[in-house]
Amino acid sequence: MPNYTIGVDLGGTNLRIAAVDEAGRLIEKLTLGAQVALGRDHVVSEMCDAIRQVAERHKDAGELRGIGIGVPGIIDMHTGMVRQSPNLPDWIDYPARAVIEKQLGTRVFLENDANSAALGEKWLGAARDFDDMLMLTMGTGVGGGIVLGSRIWRGMTGMAGELGHMTVEPDGHPCGCGNRGCLEQYASATAVVRMAKEAIAEGAKGLARAANADPEFSAKAVYNLAIQGDEDARKIFRQVGRALGIAISGLVNALNLPMYVVGGGVAGAWDAFAPSIFEELRWRSMVYKATAPQSARGGDKTLITRTLLGSDAGLYGAARLPMLQ
Amino acid sequence: MPNYTIGVDLGGTNLRIAAVDEAGRLIEKLTLGAQVALGRDHVVSEMCDAIRQVAERHKDAGELRGIGIGVPGIIDMHTGMVRQSPNLPDWIDYPARAVIEKQLGTRVFLENDANSAALGEKWLGAARDFDDMLMLTMGTGVGGGIVLGSRIWRGMTGMAGELGHMTVEPDGHPCGCGNRGCLEQYASATAVVRMAKEAIAEGAKGLARAANADPEFSAKAVYNLAIQGDEDARKIFRQVGRALGIAISGLVNALNLPMYVVGGGVAGAWDAFAPSIFEELRWRSMVYKATAPQSARGGDKTLITRTLLGSDAGLYGAARLPMLQ
Repeated sequence: MPNYTIGVDLGGTNLRIAAVDEAGRLIEKLTLGAQVALGRDHVVSEMCDAIRQVAERHKDAGELRGIGIGVPGIIDMHTGMVRQSPNLPDWIDYPARAVIEKQLGTRVFLENDANSAALGEKWLGAARDFDDMLMLTMGTGVGGGIVLGSRIWRGMTGMAGELGHMTVEPDGHPCGCGNRGCLEQYASATAVVRMAKEAIAEGAKGLARAANADPEFSAKAVYNLAIQGDEDARKIFRQVGRALGIAISGLVNALNLPMYVVGGGVAGAWDAFAPSIFEELRWRSMVYKATAPQSARGGDKTLITRTLLGSDAGLYGAARLPMLQ
Repeated sequence: MPNYTIGVDLGGTNLRIAAVDEAGRLIEKLTLGAQVALGRDHVVSEMCDAIRQVAERHKDAGELRGIGIGVPGIIDMHTGMVRQSPNLPDWIDYPARAVIEKQLGTRVFLENDANSAALGEKWLGAARDFDDMLMLTMGTGVGGGIVLGSRIWRGMTGMAGELGHMTVEPDGHPCGCGNRGCLEQYASATAVVRMAKEAIAEGAKGLARAANADPEFSAKAVYNLAIQGDEDARKIFRQVGRALGIAISGLVNALNLPMYVVGGGVAGAWDAFAPSIFEELRWRSMVYKATAPQSARGGDKTLITRTLLGSDAGLYGAARLPMLQ
């Protein structure tokens, strides 16, 4: 029987857990509500209970090789501390790895959630045939993960892959990070809603009607208008694609990777923004021009594609972590 | 006696050759004029004659392990072909490696000149204590080289490191590559002269006097005015630093490397543009903010510095190539 691992995707709303064997076959997947408001001890305790139950159910299926956890936020890889997390407010300088290892008696590996998603797509998703790839995860913010030689490229202090904070418009919209014109300010769900509100203020009627009808007016509502042909909504996704195109052009010129994956919830609007990505790439990246699928003479092509694993990318990537140690 | 290699820096004007031993000690260095106008066969023949003479003079010094050649342009690493070179107009799909190996009977390794410069700084220069680094070379254009794990990161097709063509101003000045607002359009010697001419057209008196007095008005003349306090000239180098700062901020966020080296002829104006680089980094890069030398709590610091080897970086890097095979 093959060995297996347990992956955890720790979001601000949900806690998802999967047992996966070393061939990438799903053994069990479950979703719990993450009651972040009850504090980190509560969240960790619930998570550990659930992991123990999963492990107990599959104790005859093979050896549990370890637990991998994708955490939104900045992680110190050396110490296993969560430095800070936007979605887990009291996880500040929190020794999560030590706490969880003590409760479970099993090896635990923490990883940034965007890095986990990249690793998942590399292992079982759109990039499974490539050793080198990167992934952009478009959610509330924009995260990134770079995989080189089949391993996450963590950089000097584990902070590599902050692709959502690359500057795409030097004098653009202010970002929470202190910069102006970060990719995240044009390509996140938050940015789509902000741009829709800006368009409404400038008289966009279809968007105004949608916003009035829906108290939880979201990026998805803007997408629904765009696919119905609303020009103001379409323009917003062209801006999303332009920003992604500027960032990806720079990354293609710098790294010349074979595969770039776009994931996260906003990637569901791929049809609406992808044409603008490729439009930017064709004139902004000399490396893309030489290696675009349409023009590459040999076998080496630069591919940009949407996620294959969808919202499971980070979960599978987390399960992969213990297998790579 | 230690083994040694011969490195060649093949520019559009000069051909420079150095014999270097495996400890990085210079054995001999010489400079020839590169008579590019006489055609590639002539250039290669002169180069091979000079290499043979150097090897003959040092035949008792150790074993010649190979020849490394830094070439400006696009090189197919698999076949050893020079695809194209801006400074060597008739080197188009030219099997340079095979031709030179046949003439010399020695192993030959070709590399892009900006990659060679990065490798030189990594081996013996500003980045010698770091396994991971990148270098920007500011000359007529802006080149780049990325070194990861002490090896040049070539990417899928050997085109990685085209950092001069990262977009820093999305609607900026047109670039020869087809894009607008490439780093090269703000941080090359060519760009400095162009920006000076633009300033003259807008009434910059000091620059106008310097340009009238000097028929070969160059980036260096603009720098000389800047250090004398001419505000128009100073403003140009602030623009150079801003563009470099935007590009380096993105690279720091993406790669989180410990060392970034700025070289090439324009790096001689470091004093005039470096303050603007750091100003941009401090607000544009969250990874830099967490790791800046002034603020990093631990030992891990992000360093940005000028070249230590100056115009010899590419020559030493070329000599290093055969040692890494």
